[in-house]
Amino acid sequence: MASYKAPLREIQFVLHDVLDIEQLAALPDFADMVGRETVDGVVEEAAKLIEEKIAPLSARGDAQGCRWEQGEVRVPEGYADAYKLYWQGGWVGLSSSPEFGGQGLPYTLSKVVEEMLCSANVGFALYPGLTSSCFEAIEANGSEAIKRTYLPKLATGEWTGTMCMTEPQAGSDLAAVKTKAIPQGDGSFLIEGGKIFITSGEHRMADNIIHFVLARLPDSPPGIKGLSTFVVPKFFVKPDGTPGERNKVRCVSIEHKMGMHGSVTCTMAFEGARGWMVGQPNQGIQNMFVMMNLARIMVGFQGLGQCELATQNAIRYAQERRQGKAFNNGDAIIEHPDVRRMLLTMKALTEAGRVLAYETALNVDIAAHHTDAAAREAAQDWVELTTPLVKSFLTDAAFDLGSMAVQVYGGHGFIREHGVEQIVRDSKILALYEGTNGIQAMDLVRRKLMLHNGRLAQRFFERVRKDLALAGADGRDLAFLERPLSQALDAVETTTRWLQESFKTNPNDAGFGAVDFLKAFSLTALGYNWLRMVKAAAKQPDAGLRKAKRITAEFFAARLLTQVPTLCANVRQNADSLMQLEAEQF
Amino acid sequence: MASYKAPLREIQFVLHDVLDIEQLAALPDFADMVGRETVDGVVEEAAKLIEEKIAPLSARGDAQGCRWEQGEVRVPEGYADAYKLYWQGGWVGLSSSPEFGGQGLPYTLSKVVEEMLCSANVGFALYPGLTSSCFEAIEANGSEAIKRTYLPKLATGEWTGTMCMTEPQAGSDLAAVKTKAIPQGDGSFLIEGGKIFITSGEHRMADNIIHFVLARLPDSPPGIKGLSTFVVPKFFVKPDGTPGERNKVRCVSIEHKMGMHGSVTCTMAFEGARGWMVGQPNQGIQNMFVMMNLARIMVGFQGLGQCELATQNAIRYAQERRQGKAFNNGDAIIEHPDVRRMLLTMKALTEAGRVLAYETALNVDIAAHHTDAAAREAAQDWVELTTPLVKSFLTDAAFDLGSMAVQVYGGHGFIREHGVEQIVRDSKILALYEGTNGIQAMDLVRRKLMLHNGRLAQRFFERVRKDLALAGADGRDLAFLERPLSQALDAVETTTRWLQESFKTNPNDAGFGAVDFLKAFSLTALGYNWLRMVKAAAKQPDAGLRKAKRITAEFFAARLLTQVPTLCANVRQNADSLMQLEAEQF
Repeated sequence: MASYKAPLREIQFVLHDVLDIEQLAALPDFADMVGRETVDGVVEEAAKLIEEKIAPLSARGDAQGCRWEQGEVRVPEGYADAYKLYWQGGWVGLSSSPEFGGQGLPYTLSKVVEEMLCSANVGFALYPGLTSSCFEAIEANGSEAIKRTYLPKLATGEWTGTMCMTEPQAGSDLAAVKTKAIPQGDGSFLIEGGKIFITSGEHRMADNIIHFVLARLPDSPPGIKGLSTFVVPKFFVKPDGTPGERNKVRCVSIEHKMGMHGSVTCTMAFEGARGWMVGQPNQGIQNMFVMMNLARIMVGFQGLGQCELATQNAIRYAQERRQGKAFNNGDAIIEHPDVRRMLLTMKALTEAGRVLAYETALNVDIAAHHTDAAAREAAQDWVELTTPLVKSFLTDAAFDLGSMAVQVYGGHGFIREHGVEQIVRDSKILALYEGTNGIQAMDLVRRKLMLHNGRLAQRFFERVRKDLALAGADGRDLAFLERPLSQALDAVETTTRWLQESFKTNPNDAGFGAVDFLKAFSLTALGYNWLRMVKAAAKQPDAGLRKAKRITAEFFAARLLTQVPTLCANVRQNADSLMQLEAEQF
Repeated sequence: MASYKAPLREIQFVLHDVLDIEQLAALPDFADMVGRETVDGVVEEAAKLIEEKIAPLSARGDAQGCRWEQGEVRVPEGYADAYKLYWQGGWVGLSSSPEFGGQGLPYTLSKVVEEMLCSANVGFALYPGLTSSCFEAIEANGSEAIKRTYLPKLATGEWTGTMCMTEPQAGSDLAAVKTKAIPQGDGSFLIEGGKIFITSGEHRMADNIIHFVLARLPDSPPGIKGLSTFVVPKFFVKPDGTPGERNKVRCVSIEHKMGMHGSVTCTMAFEGARGWMVGQPNQGIQNMFVMMNLARIMVGFQGLGQCELATQNAIRYAQERRQGKAFNNGDAIIEHPDVRRMLLTMKALTEAGRVLAYETALNVDIAAHHTDAAAREAAQDWVELTTPLVKSFLTDAAFDLGSMAVQVYGGHGFIREHGVEQIVRDSKILALYEGTNGIQAMDLVRRKLMLHNGRLAQRFFERVRKDLALAGADGRDLAFLERPLSQALDAVETTTRWLQESFKTNPNDAGFGAVDFLKAFSLTALGYNWLRMVKAAAKQPDAGLRKAKRITAEFFAARLLTQVPTLCANVRQNADSLMQLEAEQF
């Protein structure tokens, strides 16, 4: 079984020493909430619960899976008790607004907890995860009455939530959604239609399930501009706020999946289920955006959690497993250079990936709570730009590092009881849901690079260049990293300009290069994170930390960051001929 | 469910038009056996059986798996009947020597059939696969009596075989094997010990199972030089050649794995089982080499089969699935550039990978059957050099393309019934068994580059350069491919020299770079294959084939082959500091 120990030293290093989370204390909304002791206390308490109560359920959840029995869903043994502990401990609503019963702590902290939860048991993590998404969608657009009815119970996690978007013919293309919402004249709507791939669509761990549903009004235009959003409870809420009669929404089947067996994925039938509109008619897609952007960051944290799980298990196994003699006469396999190459790759991506994810979360807090409009704008730019990187890069990394962990275990990695193959199976979905990673790359290239006349990327480049100049000035020998980072930055900046232009004339070129570009941009961002980590580590008393950061940065700089120019050269190419192969000639 | 249609046009194109398999007809052993009609007839007949009878069992085999019941193993429903059809059709012994009941056709043809079988049902393929390995190991080293006792039934596949090497403490490091063989004075030995990860170790599809066992004599030296090999039948063979009494070898449990559920993986207990030595005492490792090299090629073909399966299913789905409008107004997802990028990657690697694998097989035939010693030597050099490429590159590709197929399917790819996630799960083992892919890379760098003073790689470089010069001379515009191929070749050649030198002073450098080097070498070999395919296609009447080859080659040349210089730069680096991080500092 894969084991999990929260990487507290690393988390605290990133929060305090690399990103200075204490800067949030200057914001009125967070005064007194983000001192070092508070932050560490919250993280350590969460770690304890997660390590002791939730991690041990992961392998069992994978083996048992969920079962469908005549419309009811049975989750794996132990999940219901663990979920109760989790929401009653206040962890679901950690950063929800106190107005609705949340604890009002920074979003960043809730994401740190999310990382740990997703290392320990990513299938379990989806129950509170979707609940938060549902909360966010209603909070952003719901009427006061709707908010008061649903948010307090979603904030705490006493009720869970879902997002009901996908239909068989409408996956990446939500314009094709057919589910109908028929107004009843009393402010309510009857929802008719079928939804697939609904995470947590049915279970009995919570007293109620709140569905957030994308549907079409009878008089709405076709396509994406004719969608509206509705809240549809499993049980109607009585005036006293408790669940009453059953609504006409049911789970008709559940999916058998590659992984994520602890999380139930439902096909839902809405058969005249009663719902209430959230937001304005035909504004459904816009209504989902706030939630969707946060959901993408959440999925990135799921990826980060799985990266950490793969990395720490592979390291532990390689330290313990003895097999043959290495060139340096060591007999643990960690002394074999190729095993070490894999472990350093895993460390390099996980540790710098954590900075990427945490910094995006930190900017979500700043964008929402800073008193200065310019600071809010800069933070929002950062969030918009890096969201597709966080979502895609960290989830691709999760799958790749899962596979690498299996490779470190050798044949044993293929055996289920060792638990690392589960990482490969669980993490593949992360690259698919909330917009496939290809769609994220198009979001980066097509939308984020274009926003505000290219301002988002420009700000990023300026910031990295400023830090590069600083690093050069303070006398430490960081040329090993500064040089490839500077080259990577040049390549990404040149390619950004190329993409901004080429999109106007031939979007297929950009489409062909988008995934490579996202990878190049992400590696460059990770290079920037390594620069800051090495500098921050240099000030730490822990010699082991200093050495590990330095050597891992050397590895990253010499062997991973150097891919960026080649990836960028891939992007800046004409794809005309590639589009000329007819579909049936493949 | 993943579907499978044998890519006959492609297979025949490679066999006849790219590699000229008819050259084998000039060898006395194969006269009249390898005319175009015979070859195509064999392949088409195999394809029919495999498509109709074996492919449909794959999903069921995955879902049911194998069951252990008090020492007996139940294979998935339908497997026993299909196996009977398969061996009785003569497919197991297609290329085994007629002396022992085989059909004596070229090894190349048996590998073409292997590719198809491994696309259709890779778990099933291991039953005949290990049988062939066991046959080869006994044929290479057994006494006449042993050969006559076991080979005829192994050749036909009426009995199946196993390779019993791994023990819990002895995986990659066979020096640690503890199983004992105690001489009984009558020419037999009692085998005592436990073996793990034994493919096809127990089942009832065949009347007998022949175990080929690595064990240690009482007076043998410790380590790798004290191992001998033994044949241990499940049932003793009576003088009339039929199975008699049960031997003391039993299956004590089976593994629960990530994939390959149709193939049983056994823990075997040898409790005073009677066996007979194959070959000389303490020559066990050498005895396994012939078989092991062929087994590595076989695993490469398993990878190729899975590459083809992933590619053809992804293409089919992308042609059919409609979702949104592409920039060219197409509505099948194959018109979306990022989907097309994935499909072209899959095609480019699978098709050129097929040439790599087939050419290695063809050289196995030439090395064994050519009448000219120099031709045999050149062929053997090719086989030795490319075996680690075939094994590693094609199995890594299988996993990567499986993951890419899932990505093309989107969220549906994560659902088991679509069948593409099975490719990811089945194919991961290919990168682990028969020597992990890291070990293959070390075999390339440490052994194959060094053999005969670097002759193997030198011959490869010369051959590619000769073809490059030819291509330049005949007036066709192939610069799009020749230029990056030439650059790749330069980089690989420079790096080869660097590795040959650096190994003497710091093997850790080479160890760190080995996997990247193997990838660079493989991509270069694939570039050479694309050059030959484009030239061969230009002579074909089929305009669709010409166009598809040309465009796929353009994609490969511009976006994949260009990785080679960066990979090679990774290799030519000092790894000293990376070795300095202490194991416990990770």
